[in-house]
Amino acid sequence: MRRLKRVAIVGVGLVGGSFALALRRAGMVATIVGVDRNAEALARAAALGVIDTAAESVSDAAAGSDLVVVAVPVRAIASVLHDVALALDPGAVVTDVGSTKADVAEDARAELRSLFPRFVPGHPIAGREASGVEAATADLFKGARIVLTPHADTATDAVDLVRACWEAAGGRVVQLEAAAHDRIFAAVSHLPHLLSFALVSEIGSRPDSAELFSFAAGGFRDFTRIAASSPEMWRDIALQNRSALLDELDRYGARLAVFRELVDKGDGPGLQRLMAEARASRQALGPGPRRGSTNE
Amino acid sequence: MRRLKRVAIVGVGLVGGSFALALRRAGMVATIVGVDRNAEALARAAALGVIDTAAESVSDAAAGSDLVVVAVPVRAIASVLHDVALALDPGAVVTDVGSTKADVAEDARAELRSLFPRFVPGHPIAGREASGVEAATADLFKGARIVLTPHADTATDAVDLVRACWEAAGGRVVQLEAAAHDRIFAAVSHLPHLLSFALVSEIGSRPDSAELFSFAAGGFRDFTRIAASSPEMWRDIALQNRSALLDELDRYGARLAVFRELVDKGDGPGLQRLMAEARASRQALGPGPRRGSTNE
Repeated sequence: MRRLKRVAIVGVGLVGGSFALALRRAGMVATIVGVDRNAEALARAAALGVIDTAAESVSDAAAGSDLVVVAVPVRAIASVLHDVALALDPGAVVTDVGSTKADVAEDARAELRSLFPRFVPGHPIAGREASGVEAATADLFKGARIVLTPHADTATDAVDLVRACWEAAGGRVVQLEAAAHDRIFAAVSHLPHLLSFALVSEIGSRPDSAELFSFAAGGFRDFTRIAASSPEMWRDIALQNRSALLDELDRYGARLAVFRELVDKGDGPGLQRLMAEARASRQALGPGPRRGSTNE
Repeated sequence: MRRLKRVAIVGVGLVGGSFALALRRAGMVATIVGVDRNAEALARAAALGVIDTAAESVSDAAAGSDLVVVAVPVRAIASVLHDVALALDPGAVVTDVGSTKADVAEDARAELRSLFPRFVPGHPIAGREASGVEAATADLFKGARIVLTPHADTATDAVDLVRACWEAAGGRVVQLEAAAHDRIFAAVSHLPHLLSFALVSEIGSRPDSAELFSFAAGGFRDFTRIAASSPEMWRDIALQNRSALLDELDRYGARLAVFRELVDKGDGPGLQRLMAEARASRQALGPGPRRGSTNE
């Protein structure tokens, strides 16, 4: 893998900052330029040595870079790509870290036009409870799965470059079609977040919510930990992946109706069978790392 | 508080064993007798010094004891109380540790008859992921909430005795009506367990479940940790607290339908408002101890 002359990080938060640190540690890049709508965050990123220089605009950051990493919330990706397209070098590569992929690919085609083959959609499955560049760490992606969803039109050398960067950061790269990615994450991430928000919302809306919460124990806390996630981020994910999420909500509703029916009929063996199957599935999954869910 | 001559522990698992250890450490009791349907567990309890002697039957354990602690699964409580009634001393006290309370009170009235005023229904909100007498520890109830649900007919001295024992074990005792207890725990414990079992059940039932689970990250693991709980225990709790649980399922279904509608209509502000309210509620709750949910 050739060493990159210059990498642009658009959005120097936890994920963008950690990727910068990981690339630098791996010796993959000479210069890292950062840009962020939040001037204070950008200054802190420079002060912390996460980036070498701060650019004034996305186009300034993109011009002259070999790789542009778009690490902004999903709803902001389209406008960033618009500015990237104005300045990107012909041989350069663009990637993103958004939690939804079909919508991003569509935006990328519209904004990048002839440069679309240089865009490699990505989604690192990593996060932690803290956010912001102060929480960035070169180890964030160590052992994490990184999903890339290249299109048939995406250039092979662009995919290879992005894959090499994530592998240098310690990630385990896997390729999926964008639609498959969105279905999978609707099921194992977007749906549970919505279910958790809904439970806390329901209980929190009652006149006796303070008393109810005062009896909440470890199980409730585990179940609702993800309801402390960013409302803006999860609003965007829910809307960007709307169709897959609605499908998942309906599947879940149907399964929950089966459980309800078993409780209503007092069908102990039926209930036990489904619960035992679920437990076996959950136990096979293992405890896993206990950390936050900022970028699932 | 007078020192108890003899305490009987019926069911020497995690909760019964831990209560025995805590009472002994507090100097509340001279002799602890244990009884368990599982002869091996009973022998281990004696070998570990959790109990002083092993009784051959519930009636043998109850006879001559000042306090009988029924620490068996909720569905087994009625038959234990039946045997306790055959042998209980007139001034002795009986308590339980079941996760549902209205049904237990009903069973207790039917089984104990004239001795019903000596029965103090209880529910310690404590547990850990490990189970069995080997996992018992005198510290299990330190700082834990202990709910007692005495009936109007329950003798005051019986309530005082049970309260003193739990306080000696480090618990924070609170009294509720049985129906209020069952409504509260349907909302903050029984419902989330069912929702978590249902999610893992739904995903686990798909042909591509292995692929789906392989992408599950920290948020999914937190949300579904309680789906690894005992199917027998949660089947029983769901059925014993059926009416309150069905109410909670319906409330939850209505709230989830609101979220679904907001996603379907693409109502970002509406979705963000509910998510932000939920996050504020969840953050107010704090992270809490990270442990299992065997007796919520």
